[in-house]
Amino acid sequence: MDHDRIVILAHEKFPDRAKTALGVMRYGDQEVAAVIDRDKAGTRVHDHTTTVDDAPIVDSYAAAAETVDGDVDALLIGIAPIGGGFDESWRPDVRNALADGNDVVSGLHYFLEDDEEFATLAAEHGADLFDVRNPHEGLTVAEGRSAEVDADVVLTVGTDCSVGKMTTTMEIVEAARDRGIDAAVVPTGQTGIMVEGWGNPVDRVVSDFTAGAVEEMILEKGDEHDLLVVEGQGSIVHPAYSAVTCGILHGAMADALVLCHEAGRERIHGYESFPLQDVDEYVDLYENLASTVHPSEVVAGALNTKDAADDADAAAALDRFENELGAEATDPIRFGADPIVDAIEAEVLE
Amino acid sequence: MDHDRIVILAHEKFPDRAKTALGVMRYGDQEVAAVIDRDKAGTRVHDHTTTVDDAPIVDSYAAAAETVDGDVDALLIGIAPIGGGFDESWRPDVRNALADGNDVVSGLHYFLEDDEEFATLAAEHGADLFDVRNPHEGLTVAEGRSAEVDADVVLTVGTDCSVGKMTTTMEIVEAARDRGIDAAVVPTGQTGIMVEGWGNPVDRVVSDFTAGAVEEMILEKGDEHDLLVVEGQGSIVHPAYSAVTCGILHGAMADALVLCHEAGRERIHGYESFPLQDVDEYVDLYENLASTVHPSEVVAGALNTKDAADDADAAAALDRFENELGAEATDPIRFGADPIVDAIEAEVLE
Repeated sequence: MDHDRIVILAHEKFPDRAKTALGVMRYGDQEVAAVIDRDKAGTRVHDHTTTVDDAPIVDSYAAAAETVDGDVDALLIGIAPIGGGFDESWRPDVRNALADGNDVVSGLHYFLEDDEEFATLAAEHGADLFDVRNPHEGLTVAEGRSAEVDADVVLTVGTDCSVGKMTTTMEIVEAARDRGIDAAVVPTGQTGIMVEGWGNPVDRVVSDFTAGAVEEMILEKGDEHDLLVVEGQGSIVHPAYSAVTCGILHGAMADALVLCHEAGRERIHGYESFPLQDVDEYVDLYENLASTVHPSEVVAGALNTKDAADDADAAAALDRFENELGAEATDPIRFGADPIVDAIEAEVLE
Repeated sequence: MDHDRIVILAHEKFPDRAKTALGVMRYGDQEVAAVIDRDKAGTRVHDHTTTVDDAPIVDSYAAAAETVDGDVDALLIGIAPIGGGFDESWRPDVRNALADGNDVVSGLHYFLEDDEEFATLAAEHGADLFDVRNPHEGLTVAEGRSAEVDADVVLTVGTDCSVGKMTTTMEIVEAARDRGIDAAVVPTGQTGIMVEGWGNPVDRVVSDFTAGAVEEMILEKGDEHDLLVVEGQGSIVHPAYSAVTCGILHGAMADALVLCHEAGRERIHGYESFPLQDVDEYVDLYENLASTVHPSEVVAGALNTKDAADDADAAAALDRFENELGAEATDPIRFGADPIVDAIEAEVLE
């Protein structure tokens, strides 16, 4: 999965409810030639957000094909309805992309390769369907070997879902590379996989293979880089998703952890009867559990301060978070990831 | 899946390497009419073990059909080769059972219902193929609701795999029922599912649904009984299987935990470079992690003393384990499960 120039489908959701689209636009190497959103057709990306490169917004793949100069490689589905189904209103866009010989990349639970029309069109036109949420066949149980690789391994862990683990992972790797560190992302979720062009969707594998799916990636990349940053998922105290979190924690055998939190979050998102734990309790839980398999410490924190009124408010929230954490922290978006990379350099890299 | 009288296939492995066969013979309600083992044909079960009811051992399903008086309902595959594949030398046994209209129950990773010959034979003869390791389609993420049921919930947890969690679960429920407590097993693995005739194979579900697969069972049975004992899997410090353990821990929202250990075990089985933790460390890990979702304490322990020289040695090992655990413990096979049920009655049941 390696595309140079793509069109991103984000009907009716760009930009605020198009997390995958924004993630790929912010962190992917792919050039985004156009965004498809029938509600915002005729405007441009920069009319809505300046955190990513500009591009025209059009109402359909057909319109994108007319608007865009030169070829594109792929159509990427950059949104997900609740439940992960395929919205039939997108069918003409996918159909037309395949008819042009372009690949289609999707993170939906509904696998495009199981759709008869799409499979036939893809075969006819030499296009590939990439269902990034469909784990490959060869996965198996972990052997406890991730610590054998040459690279040092850092894992982002969280106080909850959707607190910024993927973003923090990407920002750490970018900041490390800016210092000349040979760093790479180990992606575990759909957006990370789309950005990086490879990876195992760890939340969709057979439960017994959760740690194994992470170990496979670390063994594959761990001798090619000096630093691997594994994208964490969920939270170790999450009533539904802690299994995935725990499997990643033990599968990664990380040398260091970075704890991600959202300022002001007090209850588990979507599970409001469950309060978050105190920050120092998360540190103990993650360190104690990780260290039964491989010694690991929380060396830094990432605080998502998107709801802070201004930088001063954000800095105050960061101060409180650092005190609770007992380590340096930053908002990698607002203030940059350097304090995290400083900690990784000091505590992990030789 | 409800069978009165079965034949169990255990070629070349009965009894010591036929864990599933022995589990079903020990705890299942089904009458076992014969065991199939070509290496031991002509002997009887009681020639090899007296821990279960006696039955003839024959060399094939065809021989069983000739030997056994009256009808049987099902052939149960009571062994698993490494990797969980289907051994082609068993094909005539399965074929003949289906041709007789008997169901076939299997916990192999190779699903019999995907085998064209078996699927055709089953359809022709009105027989059912039960692949107990194949999760049903409707599973989804947990909602954090297990604590809502009327029943109190106890979960067996372990210091490692294969320390006796399934056995302990069964023995607790039997001992509780002997006292008139309306108790039921919540099975999570293949043997437990075969014994009980229902259940979700939690180690084979999509990783995101691990807790949900447990919650579904608890919500289904939790208002019909006063005590549910959930069969635990793996260990929270296992390099490969901790994800499943963690998902069960949070999905069950248990009121109490029973810690299972094997006397003398010092290293993780099959992962010998990983030492076990101290017993009190397991107590802290399980209690701290469980209690982030639902308050829970280790109220008793189960020690597998099968390798002890005699009862005095076993009792000495039990004393040491109780001291480390800080709670009452027993070997439920050697000394009975009453001390565990005492603790459950004192600490959990009103």
